Amino acid sequence: MTEQPLPTAQDVLAAADRLQGRVHRTPVFTSSTLDAQTDAQVFFKCEQFQRMGAFKIRGALNALMRLDPASRQRGVVAYSSGNHAQGVALAARDLGMPAVIVMPEDAPAAKRAATEGYGATVIGYDRYREDRLAIANQLQQDNGYTLIPPFDHPDVIAGQGTAALELFEETGPLDVLLVPVGGGGLIAGCALAAQLCSPGCEVIGVEPEAGNDGQQSWRSGKLVTIPTPATLADGAQSQSLGSITFPLIQQWVSDMVTVSDAELLQAMVFLAERMNLLVEPTGCLAAAAAVSLGERLKGKRVGVILTGGNVDLEHYARLLLAAKGAEAVNSQET
Amino acid sequence: MTEQPLPTAQDVLAAADRLQGRVHRTPVFTSSTLDAQTDAQVFFKCEQFQRMGAFKIRGALNALMRLDPASRQRGVVAYSSGNHAQGVALAARDLGMPAVIVMPEDAPAAKRAATEGYGATVIGYDRYREDRLAIANQLQQDNGYTLIPPFDHPDVIAGQGTAALELFEETGPLDVLLVPVGGGGLIAGCALAAQLCSPGCEVIGVEPEAGNDGQQSWRSGKLVTIPTPATLADGAQSQSLGSITFPLIQQWVSDMVTVSDAELLQAMVFLAERMNLLVEPTGCLAAAAAVSLGERLKGKRVGVILTGGNVDLEHYARLLLAAKGAEAVNSQET
Repeated sequence: MTEQPLPTAQDVLAAADRLQGRVHRTPVFTSSTLDAQTDAQVFFKCEQFQRMGAFKIRGALNALMRLDPASRQRGVVAYSSGNHAQGVALAARDLGMPAVIVMPEDAPAAKRAATEGYGATVIGYDRYREDRLAIANQLQQDNGYTLIPPFDHPDVIAGQGTAALELFEETGPLDVLLVPVGGGGLIAGCALAAQLCSPGCEVIGVEPEAGNDGQQSWRSGKLVTIPTPATLADGAQSQSLGSITFPLIQQWVSDMVTVSDAELLQAMVFLAERMNLLVEPTGCLAAAAAVSLGERLKGKRVGVILTGGNVDLEHYARLLLAAKGAEAVNSQET
Repeated sequence: MTEQPLPTAQDVLAAADRLQGRVHRTPVFTSSTLDAQTDAQVFFKCEQFQRMGAFKIRGALNALMRLDPASRQRGVVAYSSGNHAQGVALAARDLGMPAVIVMPEDAPAAKRAATEGYGATVIGYDRYREDRLAIANQLQQDNGYTLIPPFDHPDVIAGQGTAALELFEETGPLDVLLVPVGGGGLIAGCALAAQLCSPGCEVIGVEPEAGNDGQQSWRSGKLVTIPTPATLADGAQSQSLGSITFPLIQQWVSDMVTVSDAELLQAMVFLAERMNLLVEPTGCLAAAAAVSLGERLKGKRVGVILTGGNVDLEHYARLLLAAKGAEAVNSQET
């Protein structure tokens, strides 16, 4: 892999200028109940209210706007079954660019429909027999598309960092910033923003317990790859950090912690029950850590990024019932 | 009943000054999907993110702040099993006043706990054999408490109107404002605000189909009382408008419409699925009308008040599953 330059805090600032008026400035919420419970002051940056329901539009749009006119005309390709697919699709539509998304054949119909709803062409593949990267590369070669990776890209990272930039603009400096970690694009960008707006702020990454590759990499200093983890946090099932996100995380992130699926579910219920916030499981990672870190956050001003709300509603309802000790079953076909 | 002076738009302005910094300025959200679907521009005022989860804190706090020092010291009483109870309890705590809430013995434990959590004393009564008004009156007589009615009070009405005032401040003038109607306190206040900020704006009340007493009153010019209606919109189960809200509604409200429980449920699902908004069924009344009014809203700028989000989470999850055609059953005790 050729070495790419690492993005800087200045790149996050430039991304914020670029995205001005093109993405929502999402609200920051607080909960007096949680503050009393944790003896901390917790600020939730609500990216579930971002366009297309997650922060991913920030990075995608920033990356697409950085393309030269010829590349823009040819279009972009991305492989994702999640929020990155929708982010690239919507960003491309905003800019009038063609977009092709490579998505597993067995991806939820709703996700495919949402991506197509934003005007992208979806190409399905058999994820047991085909390699999505090979397919994407072929599409690049054949059509001159630019590949937009989900996290390991300087412009994607800088774009995601604007979420933290907005948070700091609203709250002022914070003592701790908790950020969900999948491939590390969001936390890398947020750490750059923190450096600028809140020097000394501890930036802490939060992974699902079952998928702590980032924590292992951060601790060992070596990029650790794990098998796809089984976790409710389906947006944090990446197998490793990236070649750009890893060095940024090593340099700027203070700690990497994990939460269990049970803690995740508890956080999801708290957000729904006490704050009327519908957040997808992955989006609750940092909120769960705000509770599980306990003592460590006492008396501190803590930022939490809620990353998104795109979850199948039936799945969400069943998770709520499971968490409340009730059980849901499928109806008989009638 | 002695005739009380009707509140005016000036009273709403005064309430806004009074509440400044004491209640949240809730965000206004939009949905490009809904706008495309309705061919209108719809603005959602999100009172489910208000303190205690509903707009009711506005009216309660305004009314309590208007009390003279001696009355403040003696305290207040209210009868309610819903958001008004929590609104009065929280407002009283804010002002360091005693508050007693008269609530049915069989009210959900969570509602009682929330009200007590705000520091109020809850007095239970048997709603099949006892009269809550008589109990409240007795408490007034014995202890000198001031009774804070849930809607039929000038200061409560003026306080609720600040929700619309904030909406207009954000959106500018609107063509239509859709407001849920129970006893009519919210819509009366909102209509006063509209008069001032958006003259010519049609203010339309929305009731559950099963409980259209307000529509009947508005059409007939006589205050109609109905038996407690059976509807998912449990916050709009009032049996009639009030002696203050009714004349205000007659004077300032353009129309009263109804939505079915099925339409309500559809709106609840849309808000959850497309906007990540968790809204209680009653809170979805106006959103449902934004869809059901169809043609009538085409090309218009439409305000919708989402009134609250306080719903038992298990009940909410079951409603989502029911709406999605899935079925939920109680788990066997193990």
